[in-house]
Amino acid sequence: MDLPTAPPVIEALARRAHGDLGYPAWLDLPNAGPLAEAFAERMAARYGWSPNPSHVRAFCDINQSLQVLLNVWTRPGDGVALHTPAYHPFLGTLQVMERPLVPIQAEPDGDSWRFVLPGDLTGCRVLLLVNPHNPTGRVLTREELEELAELAERHDLLVIADEIHADLTFAPNQHIPFATIAPERTVTLTSATKAFNLGGIRCSVAHLGHEGVRKALAAQPPFLFGSANLFGVEATVAAWRHGDAWLGEVVALLDRNRRAIGERLPSSVYGYRMPQATYLAWLHVGREGMAEVIERQAKVLLNDGAAFGPGGAEYVRLNFATSEAILDEILRRLARIA
Amino acid sequence: MDLPTAPPVIEALARRAHGDLGYPAWLDLPNAGPLAEAFAERMAARYGWSPNPSHVRAFCDINQSLQVLLNVWTRPGDGVALHTPAYHPFLGTLQVMERPLVPIQAEPDGDSWRFVLPGDLTGCRVLLLVNPHNPTGRVLTREELEELAELAERHDLLVIADEIHADLTFAPNQHIPFATIAPERTVTLTSATKAFNLGGIRCSVAHLGHEGVRKALAAQPPFLFGSANLFGVEATVAAWRHGDAWLGEVVALLDRNRRAIGERLPSSVYGYRMPQATYLAWLHVGREGMAEVIERQAKVLLNDGAAFGPGGAEYVRLNFATSEAILDEILRRLARIA
Repeated sequence: MDLPTAPPVIEALARRAHGDLGYPAWLDLPNAGPLAEAFAERMAARYGWSPNPSHVRAFCDINQSLQVLLNVWTRPGDGVALHTPAYHPFLGTLQVMERPLVPIQAEPDGDSWRFVLPGDLTGCRVLLLVNPHNPTGRVLTREELEELAELAERHDLLVIADEIHADLTFAPNQHIPFATIAPERTVTLTSATKAFNLGGIRCSVAHLGHEGVRKALAAQPPFLFGSANLFGVEATVAAWRHGDAWLGEVVALLDRNRRAIGERLPSSVYGYRMPQATYLAWLHVGREGMAEVIERQAKVLLNDGAAFGPGGAEYVRLNFATSEAILDEILRRLARIA
Repeated sequence: MDLPTAPPVIEALARRAHGDLGYPAWLDLPNAGPLAEAFAERMAARYGWSPNPSHVRAFCDINQSLQVLLNVWTRPGDGVALHTPAYHPFLGTLQVMERPLVPIQAEPDGDSWRFVLPGDLTGCRVLLLVNPHNPTGRVLTREELEELAELAERHDLLVIADEIHADLTFAPNQHIPFATIAPERTVTLTSATKAFNLGGIRCSVAHLGHEGVRKALAAQPPFLFGSANLFGVEATVAAWRHGDAWLGEVVALLDRNRRAIGERLPSSVYGYRMPQATYLAWLHVGREGMAEVIERQAKVLLNDGAAFGPGGAEYVRLNFATSEAILDEILRRLARIA
C-alpha cells in the first residue's frame, strides 16, 4: 500500500524500540503467545470463529507457511487444486516443489466471476484456497465454500486457506473463514501485513485445524522453520487490537477507489469486474504483453497477467491502494491507452 | 544482558518504526542485502577476514541455522563433534535430530581449559565448533584451530562454526574466524544479538564457505526457512556499523566483572577459571544439583551445569552481563553458600 502506517502500530513499534530487545517470554512457544491470543480474539470478534490459540503456529509469511505445509504433508507429484488465475508466488511454489497444479478456473459471470470445479481430482491432496481471491477480488459465498468443503471431503483433501485479504472485504460481501465450515480439515493462513501494510515485519499465523498436520509439524526439529520476531509480534498485535479505526478509513478509501476505476476507465479498452475485496483490479485488456505497452506509453507499472497462470495472459493487475489523487493520475494515464 | 540497548540501535529502530514498513528492496535476496554487506565489512575490519556477501544467508537465529544445516547436509545417525560441556540447546538439537554427539571434552588446565580430541571419529560428518566457547569462555588459539582444521580435513568434516561470542573477547585474547583457516570447509554462524543484547529481533547470518552446502540450500524451496525481517536487519546493521563505542564500554564492564568474580568468590566453594570471552562464568561447585540449592538459599538463579552435557554436572553457569552493583549483590550472596 502507498499509505502511511496505522498510528497504533507506529506507537507500539517505537515503544518497543526504546524497551527491552532481549528474548521475549514467549520465545519458546511455537504460537508466539500474544500473537496467537490476538489472532483468536480478532477471529471471534470479526468473523464469529473461535480458533484454538494452542493450534496456532507463527511463521514468517504466507509463502513460508505454504512451503512448510507442502513439505511436511505432501510429496513431489501430489496435486494441488487452486483457483486460477492465481497469486503468482503460489504458482512458483507449486512448480519448484513439483506439486502439479489442478486449476479451478475463473470465468466471467455477469459483473463478477464464477469458478469451474475440476472434474478429475485424481492425485490431488490439497486444496489451496485463496479467499478473498487474488487477483479477481472475489469473496466466495457460503454456498461456494460449502461446495468446496464437500469436494475436499470427497477427495480427502487438506485445505490450506489463505485468508490474508479478509480484512479488506467490502460490504455487503462477507468473509467466512473456511475453518468454520470444515474445521478439522483446514489450515488457515493469515497475517496483518496485507490489510495494515506491514510487508517487512515478517509475521504470520497458521492455525492448524488438521490434527495430522499438527502432528507432522510437531515431529520436525523445533527451530527448523525459525520463530516469531519481537517487532513482528508487536506490530501485529497492535494492528489487530487497536488498528480498526485506521482500517475502517482505509477500506472506505479503497471502496471509493474501486468504484472510481469502474467509472473512469474506458470499458472499450479495460474489461473490469469490480472486486468484492482486496486493493487489486483485474483488468481485461484483450491481448498479451499489455503491461509492457502501458508501462512504456503511460508510465504506469501494472502486473502482467501472464504471471498469474491459466486465464491470465490477456489481463493486467492494478494495485489501487493509493490516495485518490494518485489514482486519479493513474486512471487519467490509463484512459489514454488505445 | 541486563544492560540498556546501544543508542544507535534504538535510533535506527525508532526511525524505522516511523518509516516505511512495506516489503524492503532486498526482500527476495537470501542474504538480505545490507545485512550481508554489513557483516562482510565488520569481519574485514575486526578480524581481517573478507567473506563473500553473496555466500551469506540470513536466518532467524543460530539454532535455526544449525537445524537447517544438519537437515540439508546430514542424516539421522551421522555424528557431530562438539566441544563439551556445550551450549545446551545444541545438545537438544543433536538429540531430537538423532545426530550422535562426539564429545571433544574440556579438561581443567592450570588457570584455563584444554580440549581432548577424540580418537575415533567413525561416522562423524560435522564439527560443530563453538568459539569462543560456551560455557567455559575459552578462546581457541590459532594452534588449536589449525589442529581442528587438520582433523576436519582428515575426516572430511563440514565445520559449522558458531562464533556469536566473538565480539565479546577480552584482550589480549584474539578471536580468529575459522573460515580464515579452512575457508571452503566452513559455514560461519553469527549474529549481533549476543554482543548487542538483541535476542528478540531474530536475525542471524550464515556464511556458506562450503560449496556443497550452498548447493544443498539452493536446492530447497526458496521460502521454506523464512526470510529476514526489516527490524532485525535495521538493528543488526546499526549495531555492526555504529555500535562499537557502546560495545567497548560493555566489554570493559564485563572485563571488570569477570575479574571481580575471581577476587570475590571463595575458592574453597567455587572453582573458577576466568573466561577469555563471553559474559559467562563456569563455576565448579563440586557436586550435582547445586543450582537448585543456590536458588533456594541465595535467591540467585544460575544454570545447572548438568544441562550442558558431559563434564557439566558439578558446575553451575553464572551470567555476569549486569551492572557492577548487581554483580556485587550476586557475589555477596553466593559467598554465603557453604
